[in-house]
Amino acid sequence: MRLDTTQLVRDFKLLPLSLHFKATRRVQMEDYHKPDQQTLQALRNTANRLRIHSIRATTAAGSGHPTSCSSAAEIMSVLFFNTMKYRPEDPRNIHNDRFVLSKGHAAPILYAVWAETGYLKENELLNLRKVDSILEGHPVPKQQFVDVATGSLGQGLGAACGMAYTGKYFDKASYRVYCLLGDGEMSEGSVWEAMSFASYYQLDNLVAVLDVNRLGQSDPTPLQHHVEKYQQRCEAFGWQAVVVDGHSVEELCKVLNQPRHQPLAIIAKTVKGKGIPVVEDKLGWHGKPLPKDMADSAVKELQGRIVSSSKRLYPAPPCEDAPPVSLRNIRMPSAPSYKLGEKVATRKAYGQALAKLGRYNQHVIALDGDTKNSTFSELFKNEHPDRYVECYIAEQNMVSVAIGCAARDRNVVFASTFATFFTRAYDQLRMAAISESNINLCGSHCGVSIGEDGPSQMGLEDLAMFRAIPTATVFYPSDAVSTEKTLELAANTKGLCFIRTSRPENSVIYNSNEDFHVGQAKVVYKTNDDQVTVIGAGVTLHEALAAAEQLKKERINIRVIDPFTIKPLDSKAIIENARATRGRIITVEDHYYEGGLGEAVCAAVANETGFSVHRMAVSQVPRSGKPQELLRIFGIDRDAIAQAVRKVLSTSANNK
Amino acid sequence: MRLDTTQLVRDFKLLPLSLHFKATRRVQMEDYHKPDQQTLQALRNTANRLRIHSIRATTAAGSGHPTSCSSAAEIMSVLFFNTMKYRPEDPRNIHNDRFVLSKGHAAPILYAVWAETGYLKENELLNLRKVDSILEGHPVPKQQFVDVATGSLGQGLGAACGMAYTGKYFDKASYRVYCLLGDGEMSEGSVWEAMSFASYYQLDNLVAVLDVNRLGQSDPTPLQHHVEKYQQRCEAFGWQAVVVDGHSVEELCKVLNQPRHQPLAIIAKTVKGKGIPVVEDKLGWHGKPLPKDMADSAVKELQGRIVSSSKRLYPAPPCEDAPPVSLRNIRMPSAPSYKLGEKVATRKAYGQALAKLGRYNQHVIALDGDTKNSTFSELFKNEHPDRYVECYIAEQNMVSVAIGCAARDRNVVFASTFATFFTRAYDQLRMAAISESNINLCGSHCGVSIGEDGPSQMGLEDLAMFRAIPTATVFYPSDAVSTEKTLELAANTKGLCFIRTSRPENSVIYNSNEDFHVGQAKVVYKTNDDQVTVIGAGVTLHEALAAAEQLKKERINIRVIDPFTIKPLDSKAIIENARATRGRIITVEDHYYEGGLGEAVCAAVANETGFSVHRMAVSQVPRSGKPQELLRIFGIDRDAIAQAVRKVLSTSANNK
Repeated sequence: MRLDTTQLVRDFKLLPLSLHFKATRRVQMEDYHKPDQQTLQALRNTANRLRIHSIRATTAAGSGHPTSCSSAAEIMSVLFFNTMKYRPEDPRNIHNDRFVLSKGHAAPILYAVWAETGYLKENELLNLRKVDSILEGHPVPKQQFVDVATGSLGQGLGAACGMAYTGKYFDKASYRVYCLLGDGEMSEGSVWEAMSFASYYQLDNLVAVLDVNRLGQSDPTPLQHHVEKYQQRCEAFGWQAVVVDGHSVEELCKVLNQPRHQPLAIIAKTVKGKGIPVVEDKLGWHGKPLPKDMADSAVKELQGRIVSSSKRLYPAPPCEDAPPVSLRNIRMPSAPSYKLGEKVATRKAYGQALAKLGRYNQHVIALDGDTKNSTFSELFKNEHPDRYVECYIAEQNMVSVAIGCAARDRNVVFASTFATFFTRAYDQLRMAAISESNINLCGSHCGVSIGEDGPSQMGLEDLAMFRAIPTATVFYPSDAVSTEKTLELAANTKGLCFIRTSRPENSVIYNSNEDFHVGQAKVVYKTNDDQVTVIGAGVTLHEALAAAEQLKKERINIRVIDPFTIKPLDSKAIIENARATRGRIITVEDHYYEGGLGEAVCAAVANETGFSVHRMAVSQVPRSGKPQELLRIFGIDRDAIAQAVRKVLSTSANNK
Repeated sequence: MRLDTTQLVRDFKLLPLSLHFKATRRVQMEDYHKPDQQTLQALRNTANRLRIHSIRATTAAGSGHPTSCSSAAEIMSVLFFNTMKYRPEDPRNIHNDRFVLSKGHAAPILYAVWAETGYLKENELLNLRKVDSILEGHPVPKQQFVDVATGSLGQGLGAACGMAYTGKYFDKASYRVYCLLGDGEMSEGSVWEAMSFASYYQLDNLVAVLDVNRLGQSDPTPLQHHVEKYQQRCEAFGWQAVVVDGHSVEELCKVLNQPRHQPLAIIAKTVKGKGIPVVEDKLGWHGKPLPKDMADSAVKELQGRIVSSSKRLYPAPPCEDAPPVSLRNIRMPSAPSYKLGEKVATRKAYGQALAKLGRYNQHVIALDGDTKNSTFSELFKNEHPDRYVECYIAEQNMVSVAIGCAARDRNVVFASTFATFFTRAYDQLRMAAISESNINLCGSHCGVSIGEDGPSQMGLEDLAMFRAIPTATVFYPSDAVSTEKTLELAANTKGLCFIRTSRPENSVIYNSNEDFHVGQAKVVYKTNDDQVTVIGAGVTLHEALAAAEQLKKERINIRVIDPFTIKPLDSKAIIENARATRGRIITVEDHYYEGGLGEAVCAAVANETGFSVHRMAVSQVPRSGKPQELLRIFGIDRDAIAQAVRKVLSTSANNK
């Protein structure tokens, strides 16, 4: 049984502020079981071996960050060989303590650790950064010991929060989560979003270790070695914060063995390049391997510090109390219950479908960023309050928490906010792809059709953004039935799924028994004499349908296609149908021109002969106004579509 | 002369922590010139009139955030009618104190203030959110009293930092910067990036007022009314922080008149919906206008609180000490000095050009996020250290600071980091377009050609991201000469300019006297018998040129085009040249398939007959490896291009 779960500690939150500061300033000595001298020496030896591995690997690679590894050597040694409980032969075991290397550029020391555990072969380390090795420049999940890719700074702690939240509240298991951060990345606001989240949800199973080595890439960090300022900031954000000498294995063992009931920040004062005297604490050595001769002499010196001993360090096995979870076959037990013609906003259908999916699948969870009454994820919260995580107005952290919750296949995660506010988290989304994460994101309030709130709230670049994520599937359902189907598909689709929902209420156009597939478009309006194929989605699909009715009176027939997924796009259906309309295509979207539906269609037909694509989209920063007014002003309403159809036909008539 | 610049105050930073807390906890009374009772009552009256305007406007609009306005009424009254120095008839006067409404959804009270100053007509307020009014749902710069658009939360303070930095260090002027934040947005990490920046650069001309009204959109905020926690956080981030009753005009006047030499955070404890008893402090009233009858009775009650008085409040005029600045005609005095064939990375050419541009134009400034030795902005810093702003690893804030520095045409701003790290600031970039901001951003390390560092560092979605910004010009220079020309063009181009630079050293292909224009492509390889047009940029342009040489030996001639700007794209040149190669186009880019060069070209030729576009790009998350290995593996090197040309030719031969 773990020490800290069996002992009471003082409630720091109840102390007056001044006492609080004093109390947290020193490592408490009482209940500390100090490791024996042999163990301490073995930990020191391991730290130096980690340095040697890091130096050799980066020198062999001709690039990499040996000095950023060296500052963390004792931290990594103590974490992996004294603190953490895990099965080294099975790095992704669900019971293992988790580790996130937020300072991803220190990857070589992570690889070195796993060589020391025996999981990796030592000589594999020399293949660092080679094109045929799994040991890439920054951690990626093709390495079994990596859950989330890192390398874009400031993202690790948010993912660690998701893992810790899952451990404490969903898995209700003993495993803990450790995150190693650099001091440079403490400038990233996303770190402070995660700090807030962790204290708000009292993630006492989470430990952040700050490797305060004073030097960034091109300059000293803003706080340099003012460890007390880091401490003050962490405490102000509701963490227990302890300053230690980051090169003292004793101090590290001690603080990591302390009982606690708050998230713990260990502020480790370290020296960049520690153990390599010529580069220690020197600017100009970030991201530079040592030249061969310097590497040789550094290795020699470090070897000299290793005291031979028969002591072999083994990590303790984890407590096996994480529940088995299967995320296969997340199903809706019944068809949607909407009626044709009923007016339902797809954002509302999202909330209803999410609540329904959660009713039948215990591992479906929902996150939102204080927009749940707009995205309608509140419908899920109302039914399943224990599986709803309020992330407040911190979209970067929401996405990172989602990634953390989805790691090791513990949960099916749906996170929602306004479509345009996912731009706040584009870096996290990009990294989610590199992490091979299976998260589902719903962005509501797309396009000018939201109306009066104006451009700051309108998602007009979200399709471009999500399409350019290589693992993404982009759903753009146009009615309530297809929205419900979307959720079931997204829950079972690997990679990142984005669901674009709309604010206006539009008619249900599909029967409840309609079958939907990723990459399968629907022809929603068709005659035997169609002259133009119009492709719309969301509100513009409904505008296209209205245009079709309008044009019918003029005896002009058009075919209307709902692409359903914008990525992958059903090129085959589009080409086949457009061929029937003599290659004439009009796309219409509530999105900017670039990177959305129109360009996707252009690319899909780029090698077909006899096709032309006329695109309709929003061409400039829009403004406030009524939804229908804005659709008209920005040229994507029924009248504009009808006019475009007439123009396409007159142009092609002239060309004959 | 201002009080606070003539008086010494105690240096909080030198106090022991415990004293520090005590000292900042209370507003200091000594040097405070209390306004007379008439003035105080007039400020209260004004606050209530602001409430009335906000209620009437939102009820007339049928949407909007009256309760978020009401909590800030006394704050706005005191700021605009007691504290700030400005010319109400000339809101954008360069000498005026600046104001940023970070909680942009409180726009109606900002409009109300400007009606109270006489700048807006009172009855115009009732046109709030209408399609033909400038009074949009959130602040936009078509309103002369708005420098930066807000509405995406957490961004105002960063822009305010840019303005304050400019005021203190570039303009060396007396104007001050005031920023009103909501408590909900304090969850955004970007706020804490700005807090760090402001204290690091000792922006004692910056005041942040936190309207802590306890309630977010869908729930209470995480810290609710724990104002002491906000205070602790602000202090930990190096600010002077004072808690006040946000509805007491006396307390607000007092704290705003305090001397200071740190950035000041005023933590104003307020009540959401204050002054409208039925909704005061109640959940469920965010973003909801009062129904007509409720509005009428609320207005009546507020009118009853207004004590009639002859006292009229006028803002004090500003000190006129901001220097005149002209940003027109930012020129390079001489042609580039590179030699044809010389190997220069475009990232290095960026740094060299930036230093040169700065040499001849005093208002050119540079920002970077601790990557200056990689982006080469350090070459600018070395020459012009006073005009370089290190923003550390906080890209969101860097972009916001850039926007703030560029406001009111004070500086020509260039900000740089790795291309992919601009994804961190996509929301800020999007808002920069809404702000009509003229900032220039350089993203280095694009694509797989960076090599060993791996995918987390590779910009592969930046073209998609920047193209989908409506005011953006996207430069993608392919050699050192065109890079230098790019900087001169960018400095003189309105809107947001993005410059994509590459890590590998490539040959100079243009003569120094070559002329470049936005939207003008260059044909860089051409014969009279070209069979395919290949369009590449950056490294892929050089690969295309190598492929051309290779194919020449097989007697296959190709035309090679450098688009120079990806947005706007030179459709005319592409169409004309491709027509000469029988419509056969191959695009090749070091970017993902979506939203980049290839799709831009597809869209450009979508209405041409007889064209086909074969696209070559990166189709999946890449990995570490040598640059040339990765270009080969991901199919965008010279061999792949040559092979694609052969295939296109054989396909079209078969089709004949």
